[in-house]
Amino acid sequence: MSNQELPLSVAAPGCVATRQLRPPMTGETAVELAAVFKALADPVRLRLLSAIASRADGEACVCDLSTGIDVSQPTISHHLRVLREAGLLTSERRASWVYYRVVPHALTRLAEVLATEAGTVVSA
Amino acid sequence: MSNQELPLSVAAPGCVATRQLRPPMTGETAVELAAVFKALADPVRLRLLSAIASRADGEACVCDLSTGIDVSQPTISHHLRVLREAGLLTSERRASWVYYRVVPHALTRLAEVLATEAGTVVSA
Repeated sequence: MSNQELPLSVAAPGCVATRQLRPPMTGETAVELAAVFKALADPVRLRLLSAIASRADGEACVCDLSTGIDVSQPTISHHLRVLREAGLLTSERRASWVYYRVVPHALTRLAEVLATEAGTVVSA
Repeated sequence: MSNQELPLSVAAPGCVATRQLRPPMTGETAVELAAVFKALADPVRLRLLSAIASRADGEACVCDLSTGIDVSQPTISHHLRVLREAGLLTSERRASWVYYRVVPHALTRLAEVLATEAGTVVSA
């Protein structure tokens, strides 16, 4: 059995384990966060999210969201639904149109997780 | 033609456009960031990244990374390669083993982008 095939939970010859400064992310948290990152893993969705977040009050009408984004209305609607289902947007229908708002604490939570992973290193 | 089918770059009847506080993310930036978010959009990759980031000096040996993560060594190697190709990790071979480090500024950049999208709303 080569080194590469060793089960890594068993101490491997020559393996230098580094000290752990804090507990790593749990499996449950990782599953939850991966789903949100998946929603962000698309250029059109990122642009739609940013287009909404960059408006006054973090709100935009779906009728006013496609400027410069060259995709069809059904595609935009699909991406907005993915962002909403991931908890990054909320929506509200008023008269003929649906208005979308970002969910700041959802974005802030992700930012804090990433800053923690980066910051632990910076301050080590 | 119903409202839902209108091309949205044309002002639509009853559409209330909200004021833009800042330019939204460009298409080029969105493509670049979406690729990095895609690397984070997997629970095993998030746990591996966190396991590395939580060690002293933000470094861990591949031989010491699978604790509590119930996947095979080839699968771990695949996920580490995805994270490295996304610019979130660097790797260095020493003797028999490969050591991985997180790239703090890559994580910080993502955190800043998300905080900006959230913060614009909070401060609006």
